[in-house]
Amino acid sequence: MRDVSIVGIGQTKVGEHWDKSLRQLATEAISAALSEAGLERADALYVGNMLSGEVSAQEHIAALIADFAGLRGIEALKVEAADSSGAAALRLGYMAVAGGLMDTVIVCGVEKMTDAVSSATAGAALALAADSDYETLHGLSSAALHALLMRRYMYEHGVKREDFALFTVNAHRNAASNPYAMFPRPVTTEAFLKAPMIADPVSLMDSAPLADGAAAVILCPGDRAHRCTTGAVRIVASAVATDSLAIHDRRDPLFLEAAYLSAQRAYQQAGVGSADIDLFEVHDAFTITAALSLEACGFAQRGQGVRLAQEGEIALDGRIPICTMGGLKARGHPVGATGIYQIVELVEQLRGQAGVNQVKNARLGMAQSIGGTGGTVITHILEAP
Amino acid sequence: MRDVSIVGIGQTKVGEHWDKSLRQLATEAISAALSEAGLERADALYVGNMLSGEVSAQEHIAALIADFAGLRGIEALKVEAADSSGAAALRLGYMAVAGGLMDTVIVCGVEKMTDAVSSATAGAALALAADSDYETLHGLSSAALHALLMRRYMYEHGVKREDFALFTVNAHRNAASNPYAMFPRPVTTEAFLKAPMIADPVSLMDSAPLADGAAAVILCPGDRAHRCTTGAVRIVASAVATDSLAIHDRRDPLFLEAAYLSAQRAYQQAGVGSADIDLFEVHDAFTITAALSLEACGFAQRGQGVRLAQEGEIALDGRIPICTMGGLKARGHPVGATGIYQIVELVEQLRGQAGVNQVKNARLGMAQSIGGTGGTVITHILEAP
Repeated sequence: MRDVSIVGIGQTKVGEHWDKSLRQLATEAISAALSEAGLERADALYVGNMLSGEVSAQEHIAALIADFAGLRGIEALKVEAADSSGAAALRLGYMAVAGGLMDTVIVCGVEKMTDAVSSATAGAALALAADSDYETLHGLSSAALHALLMRRYMYEHGVKREDFALFTVNAHRNAASNPYAMFPRPVTTEAFLKAPMIADPVSLMDSAPLADGAAAVILCPGDRAHRCTTGAVRIVASAVATDSLAIHDRRDPLFLEAAYLSAQRAYQQAGVGSADIDLFEVHDAFTITAALSLEACGFAQRGQGVRLAQEGEIALDGRIPICTMGGLKARGHPVGATGIYQIVELVEQLRGQAGVNQVKNARLGMAQSIGGTGGTVITHILEAP
Repeated sequence: MRDVSIVGIGQTKVGEHWDKSLRQLATEAISAALSEAGLERADALYVGNMLSGEVSAQEHIAALIADFAGLRGIEALKVEAADSSGAAALRLGYMAVAGGLMDTVIVCGVEKMTDAVSSATAGAALALAADSDYETLHGLSSAALHALLMRRYMYEHGVKREDFALFTVNAHRNAASNPYAMFPRPVTTEAFLKAPMIADPVSLMDSAPLADGAAAVILCPGDRAHRCTTGAVRIVASAVATDSLAIHDRRDPLFLEAAYLSAQRAYQQAGVGSADIDLFEVHDAFTITAALSLEACGFAQRGQGVRLAQEGEIALDGRIPICTMGGLKARGHPVGATGIYQIVELVEQLRGQAGVNQVKNARLGMAQSIGGTGGTVITHILEAP
């Protein structure tokens, strides 16, 4: 297998893009990434997206985007794995380049949530990540499922709702200097505590916002990366694992087994351990998800995920900085695009281009993308140039 | 890159499975394929499906199916490319094994159309393969789009509606002895002519039926295939190409450029030409599609596709047998599963296990799967053991 490098990145601002369609958003990110890599075309385009069918009445979007981006004829496929669809597309691109089937690949994550008739429609669409026969049928939304997890976590570990506040405070502080973030402004613990409840104990401030956005990266074999850029970031691990979609069917609802499995596979592939990771783009769709992911990946003991936030360990100068450009909570969570936003942000950090958000001496960055409540988890580890 | 072989196949009967859910259908096909290969597990599962979100209110189905099939933890991803979703999943599995990332891969195509509230709902969902802003918005259904193509073809090439009849007659004749076919019975040219019109000139007898079904294949590296089976069928070419989704945006609406491109790429990869292909599983979603695909792949001159049917060349003992187990028209067209049904049928033919439908001395078989009206086209060529 060949080394795989990221040689170009592109992203749109995350937000409510009422004036731009799905294909326009994707093309904006793709054009920016191609341009940064100094390329006009690539061998293939892999698109991550979850909800274009339900929200935009459009399937078959990989070919649609390829055409709109001026790449007609190219191999183009869409991959879907709920919230981890973007990371899944990167997995596909990694396989194509590592395996020697493609030399240059565009990977794009895109989601357009504002095309939905109402926020209820968008919320209902998101619930399709859960088990429709055993969870959604009973009225469980995404927020409600995470409320069950958060309540149980609080009970099991003697944690209070306010203990989760610093995840949100940290994410918003980092977003403040990210021009692509949906909410580039700090929030206080007081604001967290006053936020309206969505599904007790999950409040608005525990929840990442639905949004529109697209992000893209260009991949090529490591030994050709110098032709494109001097800041090539190597993908040293790419791993997917799955679990039951339904929470009730897991051995332990508070242990994200697929997160553990995919992190272990990634560590093994990269030949590293959790202590070697300099920063971690965590999937903070909800604050509870951030805590559970940190624990499953070995950054905290069981029940200690929230302590990391309270002890300042997740800050830019902490032991394991997370959400360094705002995370899902403050950069925004355009579902199928999020996995690629995480990668774009890691590349900025590992190139030393993260400005005031720069994590010092960042050499190894990890991103973990979680589908639903943990049915699919995809982990990538990137290495600085 | 490594050689890739198919060492196990499985399929459910195509039809209206009111008593079986999507996950049950997929598991049935996967279990049959694993059992044939003598395996209990594999390294990864790639699922092709188009409409689970719209029709079954369920996204995130790769992890769901992995879990239900007893494969919890495994890497599992879903790929979507409209009608060619099944073939796209095979493409993904091929890349994983050829590139050395996986040793054993399950590829499953599955579609459950009968979960739709009504046939209108299923039809509307299918139309998501077309360009929603420029085609579907104007009321163009899948049948209507193909009616435009068929009418134009008749005008340009001086062909009559009844000239398409023998595609349907051939498909149904071959389905009669396929226990997995939805319509295992012959039809006559008279029945074709009397069929009710759907979108003039496309009648019921020009159109493949929507259906439920699942099919699966097991892939492994060529040099390990002997461990699983003595009838390993090699994948000698795998190619994807795209075109604009919208027909009006193509240089020539009657030339399927992506079909041409993907066939050319496949021929080049396999080092063969169209004359070397012994049988061709064509994407006869509509009779006009069969004609256009035959022409784009080099089996007939422009405007001569229907002549192949009229001259008996597409029969089991003809120059280029098509729809050898019934094709989309008579075996049925469970959209995202169809691409894998084609592969399963090719494997049966190339192993010499096709019974009374056996194509004599079949050495090279080709399958082409077409998304929408030709926005994505995926071609695979398989070689006999």
